[in-house]
Amino acid sequence: MAKANGETKRIRLSPDERRQQLITLGVRLLGERALEEISVSDIAEQAGISRGLLFHYFPTMQDFQLAVVAHANAQLLHRVRPDDSLELFDQLRDSIERYIDYVSENRQSYLALLRGPASASPDLMQLVDQTRLAIVEMILAQMPIPAQDDDRPRLVLAVRGWIAFVEEITLSWLRAETITREQLVDLLVESLLTLSLALNPALGAALRA
Amino acid sequence: MAKANGETKRIRLSPDERRQQLITLGVRLLGERALEEISVSDIAEQAGISRGLLFHYFPTMQDFQLAVVAHANAQLLHRVRPDDSLELFDQLRDSIERYIDYVSENRQSYLALLRGPASASPDLMQLVDQTRLAIVEMILAQMPIPAQDDDRPRLVLAVRGWIAFVEEITLSWLRAETITREQLVDLLVESLLTLSLALNPALGAALRA
Repeated sequence: MAKANGETKRIRLSPDERRQQLITLGVRLLGERALEEISVSDIAEQAGISRGLLFHYFPTMQDFQLAVVAHANAQLLHRVRPDDSLELFDQLRDSIERYIDYVSENRQSYLALLRGPASASPDLMQLVDQTRLAIVEMILAQMPIPAQDDDRPRLVLAVRGWIAFVEEITLSWLRAETITREQLVDLLVESLLTLSLALNPALGAALRA
Repeated sequence: MAKANGETKRIRLSPDERRQQLITLGVRLLGERALEEISVSDIAEQAGISRGLLFHYFPTMQDFQLAVVAHANAQLLHRVRPDDSLELFDQLRDSIERYIDYVSENRQSYLALLRGPASASPDLMQLVDQTRLAIVEMILAQMPIPAQDDDRPRLVLAVRGWIAFVEEITLSWLRAETITREQLVDLLVESLLTLSLALNPALGAALRA
């Protein structure tokens, strides 16, 4: 492999390392701009490889986008994972704060993914929906009173709805910060607590305990 | 204007009447299928007019779609308008029941508009967003304790979030009715009551009174 002139040097990576490098680069670019604004040329240039080699790893731009979004979703899930060393109430607040920080750091791409042209791609939306379902499961698993089997469908619907509530409010807030970050966190925490109260008074009481 | 052969007879309508007839037809079709599945030929045939005349009223299919969605949104707003003869709690329940009935009657088009390919059209989404904002205003206007000016941004965000909550749950429910209509109505009513409690304890108490 010939060395490129100037600063960009090609580094010999294993196929797995190269694939990972390209995804990491895509996720980093995703922090700066919308998915649909990331071009093949940008990626190839920043990775110091040819467009041809990029297509060797990702035959279509859609394949690349899916890999990048899957990676970004995994990062988000990792960031919001409950800290089991905390009490339940603090755990909820802590996870919500980390969610707000994550989307604030990646506001361009988060807005674009959920409300931009990318949101019309069924494959991308399926990935985003899988992440939402994983968060629903995460929340249900932390409930202090386990869901009765026959009540599970209602809880799943309610928590899915709450996630839509959180996304809508957070996206609106990212576009125009009409309240403080502290007020935003309070609103999201309180809304889940009172929703729990609506779903099951005993559950609501346990959460507030 | 020549009469067509067979059953389809052309009726002479004023331009306004014709325009209204075409929109009404579009809204009716929208109850049966998704917006993007309604073709120029369908409309022209059912209205008993030529494709050319249709384009005289709506120069592009997008113009026609916008007029149809604007009309459908106005219908939805009319259907959910609070009945002032009822007490506040019954008013909320009644409006939510009428919302569920409306979207159940128009499930294909409602799902398509909010989650289908149409949801990628910025102009259509702007119309849908205007309807959401009108519903936010409707809800805030019914609040038993008026919002303080400095607290309004927080209430607007919360009610917008609640509308996303309602839409997400209702769309999931339309796809798979995992709970009864009664349970769905209870969940949506209770969620707004408890959210009000989270926003302002005095407000929550007044709503439950």
